[in-house]
Amino acid sequence: MILHLKQIITESQAVSIADDLNAFHFVSKGINVLVTGSGMKEVPNSIEDKIDQFWVFDNDIQLASKKYKAEKREVKIGNTIIGGNTNNTIFIGGPCSVESEDQIRESAELLLDMGLTTLRGGCYKPRTSPYSFQGMGHEGLILLAKMRKEFGLNIITEVRDATHVQDVIEHADVIQVGAKAMYDQGILRACAKTNKPVLIKRGFGTTLKEFVQAAEFVLSGGNENVILCERGLRTFETNTRFTLDLCGVAWLQEHTNLPIILDPSHAMGYAYGVPVLSRACVAMGIDGLLIEAHRDPSVAKSDASQQLTHDGFRELLTSLRPVAASVGYSIV
Amino acid sequence: MILHLKQIITESQAVSIADDLNAFHFVSKGINVLVTGSGMKEVPNSIEDKIDQFWVFDNDIQLASKKYKAEKREVKIGNTIIGGNTNNTIFIGGPCSVESEDQIRESAELLLDMGLTTLRGGCYKPRTSPYSFQGMGHEGLILLAKMRKEFGLNIITEVRDATHVQDVIEHADVIQVGAKAMYDQGILRACAKTNKPVLIKRGFGTTLKEFVQAAEFVLSGGNENVILCERGLRTFETNTRFTLDLCGVAWLQEHTNLPIILDPSHAMGYAYGVPVLSRACVAMGIDGLLIEAHRDPSVAKSDASQQLTHDGFRELLTSLRPVAASVGYSIV
Amino acid sequence: MILHLKQIITESQAVSIADDLNAFHFVSKGINVLVTGSGMKEVPNSIEDKIDQFWVFDNDIQLASKKYKAEKREVKIGNTIIGGNTNNTIFIGGPCSVESEDQIRESAELLLDMGLTTLRGGCYKPRTSPYSFQGMGHEGLILLAKMRKEFGLNIITEVRDATHVQDVIEHADVIQVGAKAMYDQGILRACAKTNKPVLIKRGFGTTLKEFVQAAEFVLSGGNENVILCERGLRTFETNTRFTLDLCGVAWLQEHTNLPIILDPSHAMGYAYGVPVLSRACVAMGIDGLLIEAHRDPSVAKSDASQQLTHDGFRELLTSLRPVAASVGYSIV
Amino acid sequence: MILHLKQIITESQAVSIADDLNAFHFVSKGINVLVTGSGMKEVPNSIEDKIDQFWVFDNDIQLASKKYKAEKREVKIGNTIIGGNTNNTIFIGGPCSVESEDQIRESAELLLDMGLTTLRGGCYKPRTSPYSFQGMGHEGLILLAKMRKEFGLNIITEVRDATHVQDVIEHADVIQVGAKAMYDQGILRACAKTNKPVLIKRGFGTTLKEFVQAAEFVLSGGNENVILCERGLRTFETNTRFTLDLCGVAWLQEHTNLPIILDPSHAMGYAYGVPVLSRACVAMGIDGLLIEAHRDPSVAKSDASQQLTHDGFRELLTSLRPVAASVGYSIV
Repeated sequence: MILHLKQIITESQAVSIADDLNAFHFVSKGINVLVTGSGMKEVPNSIEDKIDQFWVFDNDIQLASKKYKAEKREVKIGNTIIGGNTNNTIFIGGPCSVESEDQIRESAELLLDMGLTTLRGGCYKPRTSPYSFQGMGHEGLILLAKMRKEFGLNIITEVRDATHVQDVIEHADVIQVGAKAMYDQGILRACAKTNKPVLIKRGFGTTLKEFVQAAEFVLSGGNENVILCERGLRTFETNTRFTLDLCGVAWLQEHTNLPIILDPSHAMGYAYGVPVLSRACVAMGIDGLLIEAHRDPSVAKSDASQQLTHDGFRELLTSLRPVAASVGYSIV
Repeated sequence: MILHLKQIITESQAVSIADDLNAFHFVSKGINVLVTGSGMKEVPNSIEDKIDQFWVFDNDIQLASKKYKAEKREVKIGNTIIGGNTNNTIFIGGPCSVESEDQIRESAELLLDMGLTTLRGGCYKPRTSPYSFQGMGHEGLILLAKMRKEFGLNIITEVRDATHVQDVIEHADVIQVGAKAMYDQGILRACAKTNKPVLIKRGFGTTLKEFVQAAEFVLSGGNENVILCERGLRTFETNTRFTLDLCGVAWLQEHTNLPIILDPSHAMGYAYGVPVLSRACVAMGIDGLLIEAHRDPSVAKSDASQQLTHDGFRELLTSLRPVAASVGYSIV
Repeated sequence: MILHLKQIITESQAVSIADDLNAFHFVSKGINVLVTGSGMKEVPNSIEDKIDQFWVFDNDIQLASKKYKAEKREVKIGNTIIGGNTNNTIFIGGPCSVESEDQIRESAELLLDMGLTTLRGGCYKPRTSPYSFQGMGHEGLILLAKMRKEFGLNIITEVRDATHVQDVIEHADVIQVGAKAMYDQGILRACAKTNKPVLIKRGFGTTLKEFVQAAEFVLSGGNENVILCERGLRTFETNTRFTLDLCGVAWLQEHTNLPIILDPSHAMGYAYGVPVLSRACVAMGIDGLLIEAHRDPSVAKSDASQQLTHDGFRELLTSLRPVAASVGYSIV
Repeated sequence: MILHLKQIITESQAVSIADDLNAFHFVSKGINVLVTGSGMKEVPNSIEDKIDQFWVFDNDIQLASKKYKAEKREVKIGNTIIGGNTNNTIFIGGPCSVESEDQIRESAELLLDMGLTTLRGGCYKPRTSPYSFQGMGHEGLILLAKMRKEFGLNIITEVRDATHVQDVIEHADVIQVGAKAMYDQGILRACAKTNKPVLIKRGFGTTLKEFVQAAEFVLSGGNENVILCERGLRTFETNTRFTLDLCGVAWLQEHTNLPIILDPSHAMGYAYGVPVLSRACVAMGIDGLLIEAHRDPSVAKSDASQQLTHDGFRELLTSLRPVAASVGYSIV
């Protein structure tokens, strides 16, 4: 149950009521919001006179539910707003991994030249083998921060586990919670305490319900800037790396109020399929696209097969603009 | 291996060579074509002088492979051509099941009024329970044939098992091999002997390789009019009926020469998601779309939840035209 | 709903009632049994006085449900009974495919020597490529029939599609409906009209509910000799050929009244894992095991990697006897 | 590549060689062991004279591979040894969650009375909703430690994320890395630095290769006490909670040298199926079984449906002993 307390209730009173109900509490636009489990179906008599509005739910998708907020939430990435009624599709690009200052600067220059605003690049790579390249870690973060300063770009990078979540929160403009880390409460609870946008990737074995419930961990802590990112399920089909679940995206658009950014690069796993899948994604009227591009994919230290060349990345943007326009969106 | 025999070789000589090689044989545009398993990597000395051209393959995707024919094949449905360089996306609609003459006539009238050419409707329904509505069978086929005669529409309907495949081949303009029947050699081999277009749906547990190999059963029998249809995989996600595999479609576009028609209705399972998924499909530059629509979905005898209303079907077409145009295609 | 009519009702009256209710009708141990869809929850007033007993169901698992018959059904294979209270685990072996008279005779001799009763061997192979070995077809059936005559063995072989179902019904003692054919109503309805045992394999993409509903197609036609066979699901894991679903077997044992035979050979896909998986299967207290063995797996025309040698097959039986005994079963 | 340095090489020389090769280094039974990525196929000339033995691998399953150590590794849990040639199957039980001192003491008493040695109980629960019971956390750990002291039992409990990994390492005898946390390098790297046994559960969307590579994170840090635990894959089948992958277990037994403990409780999700699945597991000759049992499952705060009663737990043990014996194992 979500409860909006009356304006007359002070914040400390709100905290006390939350304690009694074993509820989450935060303040949103001046309103004291309380959230309990969805098992609670009735407002207790004792606090009835303190409640302005309340919402009852069938399951634990509550703050993210259209039943609570019918309109899509807005999230601000630097000076760019996505979601709400903006009809913006933010086009985020950059390499899989930050590999060197030289390499990431070339990516930054490409974006700037193309009029784009937001640079991706992994520093803490969630590799499945201890013997692979594990990313530049903190050093990579510092390089990204340098690019932001030099080029005025927003930075999005991934947190791999709870040991460095504060480091990422400090340096990134958008905190990416990766597909393998999205059940990690150490990360989610830390993200709940900042106000920076958090992009949560759906695990490849994660149901839609669990996915949105991961967002509830962040939302219920008071951080309302949550973006969902679908990047492919693991299925029996192995000719492609994963299976992008656009049926699931249709479900999320129907049932949740969160902006959605899609990642066709990881889903496909092969550069040849990224442009055509990107066009499919954009035609759904989505809030953003996350694309991997590298100045020379053949020598990339990770995900070599799926990164676009810089030329391919430019051509992709050109082909996406009319598709976005055909459904009333703009690529930003 | 695919072999094109020299023009000088007669058809009866070709049959004899095919026998020796244990190969499939058919004549395509005046050329005697032989196909053996992909295990054969070299032309036997004894027939070297009879061969005009040959192609060696890594696996049993041969006739359907871009390595054999780089350009997409054309298939003619009535007077409409799809595939090749046509950039046509055929928009096929109609109810899940033919339920009565009155009902299917309303569908036919709708299509005619919208300027569409091809009507779908199931007669032999592959229901998983013996206690559900099993379709009108032969009687339904006769109704479809009547609609063709009255309205000049092309008819596409599904064959469920080999017992009635000849009946469907006789009455339909496009023979649909359903997702549950696509391994059925009794059906595939019968379809190989006609020249009518055959639309093969991918099984929900079928790999891309098996899917295209089902097409090889038809192609190797000499029927070159094969269309592939992706309609969703069965995954762990159950909030949608299936998971439409658009990564797989990107793979098919890259590796095969067959036209592709997509079926978002069955994948999604819920009408609310069909329009947005249809836009995603069309933005991929596909050869057709198969959409379920019913004059009153709430009383449909099968697939009630996923069929569009006739109004919804009209609105969908309107929204699809600019999307198709944005990728250089036309809805026909 | 299942209805048992009173003894006083004649068979022709029963047929007439069945017609009125749009119900399946058959006679079992002298009782007229009617089965409607599970949507029917109440006995119509008009026939109340004709009903001896009735059962209402939540879904279309009816005749196979423990709610109808709590005790496991018995099925007779030749002179061997499985199911019921027999605690027999029938051990069925033989090659993937019948390849020659010589080869299948060696299999038959092995079984006879080991005191086993039932020989498997595929004649109509449901291969996914048209360019692979497709089985010996009718000729293979004749060889199997010959082995039965010579050695007194029971024969189990697979029907691939409806075009040859009568041929298999005529020659086999147990009709195997393969994983790729189990939705095929042409086959299932033909099996419903014989009284021979029918072993239905679960499709690799088939839910438990659909699996049991395939059995309902046969049961509702009056053939009560149905055996379920789990042989592995298709999952994302590709180091093994399929994923044997023993959780599903536990579910079937709890909810259905049908005997269960397991096929670890196809699930595993590699001979090394077949013995250890077979022991797991037998420890569940199952009604049978279907194992592929070949006199020389390295030259087998199909499934070479998963077939045991004849020595391996003998050792397997030796290791299984104490496992079966530990759960109160006997290998027969 | 794994390299064993000659005895003559000092540890500090070994560290220096490891640095040069960018290799992991640890000392095992007096031998300096170095591990590089499997991409390295040849020993560099410069160190050839320092190498005693080396092993080359196709992929990054190296320390866990039978190619390196053919015999199964031993792991000591308190005074009980599993793995190696012990043929012990350790039977671990206890509730899903520690809920109160009273509750966990009853579990401990049960185990003691049954002659068992190792108690499970979750403190940091990886729930997918923020609104569910999240476990007693540190307080629960203290209760478990108390039970160890009072009853002399070994304690196994789960680490959910890296924020409390040190807390679990300090208090548990076996550190359980849960299915949702097994990609977490913050956890795995911390576990690599202790010598306590680490039980890694396979993620429900995790391939066998990724699963064993998670073990490589721990092994390559020098902790050789790693146990693998299969607990079910997420598949399309939802009548059971997960699908226990015993084909995968057969693969692990064939290819890796790590002890294997199975968890049928989570796989099945329903108490009725746990005994029969446990018998299947034990018949495979495994190193342990992890079973959930609660004094009153109906009031359990988590996993109510799958926990056995204490009576059920006793009966299970009784039924398992002969099964274990039938394959030459003993339940301990």
